[in-house]
Order: sequence, then structure tokens, then C-alpha cells
Amino acid sequence: MTAPGGRVRPERATDELLTTTRAVRRRLDLDRPVERTVVEECLRLALQAPSGMNNQRWHWVVVTDQGKKNALAEVYQEAFDAVYPPEVVTSMDAEQRRIHGSARYLATNLARVPVLVIPCQWTRIDDSTVFRQAGWWASILPAVWSFMLALRSRGLGSCITTMHLTEEERVAGLLGIPYERCTQVALLPVAHTLGTDFTSARRRPLEDVVHWNAW
Amino acid sequence: MTAPGGRVRPERATDELLTTTRAVRRRLDLDRPVERTVVEECLRLALQAPSGMNNQRWHWVVVTDQGKKNALAEVYQEAFDAVYPPEVVTSMDAEQRRIHGSARYLATNLARVPVLVIPCQWTRIDDSTVFRQAGWWASILPAVWSFMLALRSRGLGSCITTMHLTEEERVAGLLGIPYERCTQVALLPVAHTLGTDFTSARRRPLEDVVHWNAW
Repeated sequence: MTAPGGRVRPERATDELLTTTRAVRRRLDLDRPVERTVVEECLRLALQAPSGMNNQRWHWVVVTDQGKKNALAEVYQEAFDAVYPPEVVTSMDAEQRRIHGSARYLATNLARVPVLVIPCQWTRIDDSTVFRQAGWWASILPAVWSFMLALRSRGLGSCITTMHLTEEERVAGLLGIPYERCTQVALLPVAHTLGTDFTSARRRPLEDVVHWNAW
Repeated sequence: MTAPGGRVRPERATDELLTTTRAVRRRLDLDRPVERTVVEECLRLALQAPSGMNNQRWHWVVVTDQGKKNALAEVYQEAFDAVYPPEVVTSMDAEQRRIHGSARYLATNLARVPVLVIPCQWTRIDDSTVFRQAGWWASILPAVWSFMLALRSRGLGSCITTMHLTEEERVAGLLGIPYERCTQVALLPVAHTLGTDFTSARRRPLEDVVHWNAW
């Protein structure tokens, strides 16, 4: 990552970060504790992501208590089973089945993940216009992704899961989140990763999805 | 960014990237052309961001044609004036006024920005449940933020604007975007930046927004 003359080439470090920060589920280290300070460091970096009109309406609920993790995992597993009944799973193609297997592994082991993070943001966003949704989600999801990139730089991993949101109100009750005025965004499992040698993702070529000047 | 012994410390490069990638408006270089290859490079990096079930339902419309930029800028200015009528502006606090001034500068100069990028994603998302919204937006906004981080690493800048979405259907018509089946996410102005010495953002302290185990 260092150019001739010793100057760091920031684009190389960035390219590696952006291409190897993957959705980690099976490679979460369920046995190694996560230090509180590293979570705080990564959250501080996340807060530097853009926020519409600099409103910073975000809140971050970090769950490490085993009793609370058990309760969350139970709700999560129920939600998972409801979203993926057997008939949905049998209709999946090979790629979907691979990801589903990984997601099921996470659902089964969620209570063992050292840290669970639930980002939230003020006001309910149910049933809104695209204009309102766009500004709202763009004020929290870049921070979520920054959090994951920061974790990756420190040997930890996560993934964005949204499964529990079918049971959002129950989870709000478990954690004291003011459901009527604040929307949960995702649930992020956080752990050290088993190894740090992640590769880039298989993606359709850019040419299939980019349009110059007209669709 | 290099540790003793010459090893690059990836967390330092990451921290700098995540804390200095700002919403750039007044410091967009309106006179310097942007090479097509750098846009393509940054979009390829963006496509490595997470996509729910690896569905990759995204499309990226890149506008460089002056006639199309003029038409977009006209719609954008109208939308901007409708969202920020004088009575809204006069009720703003100092911070909001600062950001509004910067946003107005961008609106006034949008046709002069070398490249405008509109990320889109399949299916309409109007009036959906939080569960459906969360999965949908989390499959495109990390890619948008990755695109901005990749631009930053190459001396370019952008910001997430959503203003034109009040006129989304008109913009779809201008660019041939299939409005009935595909939702526009944002409009990203892309240009080289005037200087690259961006600082971190002023943010409320983490302690105000983090909750351990219960709200």
C-alpha cells in the first residue's frame, strides 16, 4: 500500500477495505470476547457518516447482557422461521440457498454472538413517501456501513440483518426503545472474525447495471 | 499511516477515510473535467457493498450530457425552492442555515457539476412496512456511501441529495428510468474537490446516543 518514496497510496487501502468488508456470519468468532472500547471506537467513527441537515437523530443500542441476548435470539429465530418457511427454502436457487444456510447459522447462534447492535432513528418511517424515506434512511445507513468498515479495520466483522423487524415492537419492549417515536433500522451481530483474509464478492459486471445519460 | 517496520496500519487509513469523507458542495471543482474511468472504478468498488440475498437490484444512471444536466438542474431547483420556501429558511437555526446555504449553492450550480449520478433500485418502495424498507434501503445505501468513500480516495467528492425525489417521475421521464418498477434513491453530484484537506465533522458525543443493554 506504499508508493515509491514511501508515500501511502490511500486509494489502495480504500479499495481493499471496500472490497473485503463482507457480510460475516459463519466466520464470527463466538468464543472470543469483544472489548467495549473497540465497539465505542467504531461507533465514534460511524457518527462521522453523513446525517441529513446534520440532525444526528440516531441512537445505538448495544446489547451484551446474556439474558437480553437470549431474549433477542428467541424473537429473531421466530421471525426467521416465519420469513423462511420450508416451502420458500425449497424454491431457492443455489446462491440463495448458500446465503440462507449462512443466515440460518446466524439465527441459531445469535445468543452466542458477543455483541448485538441495534441502530435506531427518531420518528416512525412506516408507510412514507420515497422522498421522506430517502432522506431518513440516507441519514443512518451510511453510518451503519461505516461502523462495519471500522470493525473490519480492527479484525472484527458484522452483517446487516433486518429479520427481527417483523417483531420490532416486541424487541422495543425488551430493550426499552420508544417504539412509537423511534424506528429500529437493523440488528448487527459483532464479533472478532475467524481469520481476516476475506476476498471480494462475486458481482454482476458494472456494464450490466450502469447507464450513461439514458437508461 | 505506516507502523514501525513499514507495515501499513489499516485502521489508521480507515479512520482517516471515514472521518474526512464529507458532504462536498461548495468545494466541488466545477471547472475540472472528471474522467469516465475514475467514475467506473468507483462504481465497481461500490458494487462490492452488501446486497440483501446478493440480489444486486441496483442500477446507476450517470449523467454527463450538458442538455440532460440542464434539464435535471431545472427540476432540482424547482424542487429545492418548493421544499425550502422563505418562511422555512427564516425559521432555521445557525447550523441549519449554514447547511442550507451550501445546499442552495449546489442547487444553483447543479448544471455545472461535471457528473451527476442517480442510483436506482428495482421495485417501488412507496408506503411500505419498516421491515420491507429496511431490507430495500440497506441493499443500496451502503453502495452509495462506498462510492463516496472511493471518490474521496481519488481526490473527488460528492454528497447525498434527495431533493429531486419530490419530482421523481419527471426525472424518470427525462432519463428513461422505468418509474413504475424502479425507485430512484438519490442524486449524487460528482467532481474533483478543491483541495483534499477535509476535516472531521462536529458531532454530538457518543455518550449522548449510545445505550448499553437498555435505552
